[in-house]
Amino acid sequence: MTDLLERLRSAVGDDHVLTEPTDVAAYVVDWTGTHRGRALAVVRPGSTTEVAEVVRACAETRTPLVPQGGNTGLVGGGVPDGSGTAVVLSLGRMRTVRDVDPVAGTLTVDAGVVLADVQAAAAAVDRLFPMSLGSEGSCTIGGNLATNAGGTAVLRYGMTRELVLGLEVVLPDGRVWDGLRGLRKDNTGYDLTQLFVGSEGTLGVITGAVLRIFPATPRHATAWVAVPSVAAAVSLLGIAQEHAGVHLSTFEIANRQALDLVLAHLPGAVDPLEAPSEWYVLVELAGSAADGGLDATLEALLADAVEAGRAMDAAIATGPGRRSALWSLREGISEVQKVEGATLKHDVTLPIADLAAWTDAMGPVLQEVLPGVRPVTYGHVGDGNLHYNLNAPIGRDDDLRAAAGDLTAAIHEAVAAAHGSISAEHGLGRTKAAAAAAYKSDVEVDLMRALKRALDPDGLMNPSVLLTAP
Amino acid sequence: MTDLLERLRSAVGDDHVLTEPTDVAAYVVDWTGTHRGRALAVVRPGSTTEVAEVVRACAETRTPLVPQGGNTGLVGGGVPDGSGTAVVLSLGRMRTVRDVDPVAGTLTVDAGVVLADVQAAAAAVDRLFPMSLGSEGSCTIGGNLATNAGGTAVLRYGMTRELVLGLEVVLPDGRVWDGLRGLRKDNTGYDLTQLFVGSEGTLGVITGAVLRIFPATPRHATAWVAVPSVAAAVSLLGIAQEHAGVHLSTFEIANRQALDLVLAHLPGAVDPLEAPSEWYVLVELAGSAADGGLDATLEALLADAVEAGRAMDAAIATGPGRRSALWSLREGISEVQKVEGATLKHDVTLPIADLAAWTDAMGPVLQEVLPGVRPVTYGHVGDGNLHYNLNAPIGRDDDLRAAAGDLTAAIHEAVAAAHGSISAEHGLGRTKAAAAAAYKSDVEVDLMRALKRALDPDGLMNPSVLLTAP
Repeated sequence: MTDLLERLRSAVGDDHVLTEPTDVAAYVVDWTGTHRGRALAVVRPGSTTEVAEVVRACAETRTPLVPQGGNTGLVGGGVPDGSGTAVVLSLGRMRTVRDVDPVAGTLTVDAGVVLADVQAAAAAVDRLFPMSLGSEGSCTIGGNLATNAGGTAVLRYGMTRELVLGLEVVLPDGRVWDGLRGLRKDNTGYDLTQLFVGSEGTLGVITGAVLRIFPATPRHATAWVAVPSVAAAVSLLGIAQEHAGVHLSTFEIANRQALDLVLAHLPGAVDPLEAPSEWYVLVELAGSAADGGLDATLEALLADAVEAGRAMDAAIATGPGRRSALWSLREGISEVQKVEGATLKHDVTLPIADLAAWTDAMGPVLQEVLPGVRPVTYGHVGDGNLHYNLNAPIGRDDDLRAAAGDLTAAIHEAVAAAHGSISAEHGLGRTKAAAAAAYKSDVEVDLMRALKRALDPDGLMNPSVLLTAP
Repeated sequence: MTDLLERLRSAVGDDHVLTEPTDVAAYVVDWTGTHRGRALAVVRPGSTTEVAEVVRACAETRTPLVPQGGNTGLVGGGVPDGSGTAVVLSLGRMRTVRDVDPVAGTLTVDAGVVLADVQAAAAAVDRLFPMSLGSEGSCTIGGNLATNAGGTAVLRYGMTRELVLGLEVVLPDGRVWDGLRGLRKDNTGYDLTQLFVGSEGTLGVITGAVLRIFPATPRHATAWVAVPSVAAAVSLLGIAQEHAGVHLSTFEIANRQALDLVLAHLPGAVDPLEAPSEWYVLVELAGSAADGGLDATLEALLADAVEAGRAMDAAIATGPGRRSALWSLREGISEVQKVEGATLKHDVTLPIADLAAWTDAMGPVLQEVLPGVRPVTYGHVGDGNLHYNLNAPIGRDDDLRAAAGDLTAAIHEAVAAAHGSISAEHGLGRTKAAAAAAYKSDVEVDLMRALKRALDPDGLMNPSVLLTAP
């Protein structure tokens, strides 16, 4: 062990091998506070070469390795277990934007670049990197890639895997795979890039990426809409698609409980509508400078929706300040849930056609398991993805913790019965690895294990994340 | 061997195990006529269960298996070698459209459904399946998936891998992986679907798929444009994107040599412009019924292009008949090249910024290798993808055959030097497996071999395709 620490220090410099408990603390607890682990050391390499040296040293000493980006994950995929045997490999010092090519529509970055800085690098050449998440100010693009992150722009631009053309990866034996190609078309063998995207650090360490950038969309038309039900929200989605076509860029849902928490805990938050509603939708159209008619399109689609009984009222943003006020109501939810008290998160996809019936049926089931439990429901209706989160009955955080297993089981059972997914965009991490294996077929689990064995035969890369121990 | 044939007959019925040379002939020669193999038998299962029985029988007798769709591939990936030891597994009888869901935007199909029938199934519910290829009347969706086919709609909708949500695959041991999920978001482990897409039958047999369908685009504005150079075509692409944004659905290039062959050999083909030009572009905008201004947009962008010296003249289609006449000039090229005589195909991607310089430099190099050789160049400028094909000097087919190795080597060297790809959309097959391995890093080839071993340890699935024998 002393030998390993020496090797790590000589690889990355003494300052970047952390072993003091106070230095290590922030790296071994996840954002949700659910997973508190221990680490042999936290190593902060500054280059791909240094990452390779660290990985090789760990491989040769059979030391488990936990890659970590901004440590904003919600399923414990970026923190070590409690054994204290693993090294945490933080990519946070690798934050160079290596290349920007607006003509080819590509951006080449280090894995440790913060998502907001990726967005800014694209904006600096009048292009858009569309991925947008609540944690964009601190999550890293490497973490986004490793988890195939989603966010609010998936409806129009797709998941992270649709935004990447090539990767650089340090393999479990310390060799570097240079797949940093920026070609849209390259049919020369298995798609290794797509294999690493979403693999949650279990097959190697992503150190760089070629990302796709898109024409900028400086014009927006944004509304916060009161809708009578989830079914109405789904209908409104159809109306919005009919009117706005490709300009529809955001279609997010939230329930009243979610808005109430934001109004209670987010400084400056104001309900934009007079009468309360059970459900709300944040809808946004986006276009180029030449797309002058977005406001008119938004007004027309809302008028149609009101006439059809799919919407009751709407607040349309009249400028950038109002627009960000509406967005803050949606983006603030995750943070204020923590302020309110104990929460239990679920990140599920349902077939869109079943979304309303599923949500309507779920409420009473949960009240039976824990009377008074408060569903704080929000998410991405256009993708069928709900963050079906629960807050404790008022003042009874311990009851929620005690019932957590039963509540999650009830939700996951209902998702499986509807042929949905128990992880839409957060990944499996430590939290859901066992549950996913239970819902998948043996064939599928065998296939995943075969891939893991092929690339990481010693099982040292982020063990017990994504796949449970065999 | 007799035992195997008996097992195959009992699995799929006597009529569907072909062994007579006349019955087998069409299945053992590829479309280009370059690869002429032999087969132990051709088996035509009618269901996934039958495919699984065939694969299991072959696995247990260590018999190599060659999956085949419409046999329209251009790199010999769907035909057996000359040993006569392999079974050809034709998916052609599996042509059921299993489900259409316009609300979810999904279409579930058997692998043997012909691409044109997939398009028609989407059109029947007022939706679009955008993939479009010259061979769409006979290629199958299973083959498109296995090769990650491209075509003329990639610019707007992406390659095949971007059009699929889930797969059903018979694995090399005969087990069936049911991954037929239609969810846009499902982060529950490695993306097995993307691993099988583009694997050319070397990891398993795709038997079914959930495809994405899109809003219909019944309105089109189409023009055949004379441009002075490849550089001008690339500039015109920028102008077209600026004007038409997401409505730009096609941007194809062809040289005069290609048009001359079409005019000579395609019945009814007429040059739509008076003066000849070295290069042409087929540009098309597509939109929904509500998009009324496409013609005006097209005219405006062409006017800008002429003023900027990026286009010299253009013929705009004035109705569906004229539109398909313009399209036939582009889609006829591949077929007429065969009529003209011996051809040598290359399917390359260049970084778009290098496309013009690369093309300009390539001509003289090839004239040195074989004076009089005729480049018949066409392809998908928007993706950087050229079908850089060569016809023999007039009347000297044998000279082309003799120089083929040198010509291809010169082209592939130049592609590699420009950081392009030697297979943009056709795959590697038998033709390019060795060349790809030579241009790839050892790390990348090792990774691909590790995946192959993990899923097909006995190496029975389409041996020597995509990867050469270790």
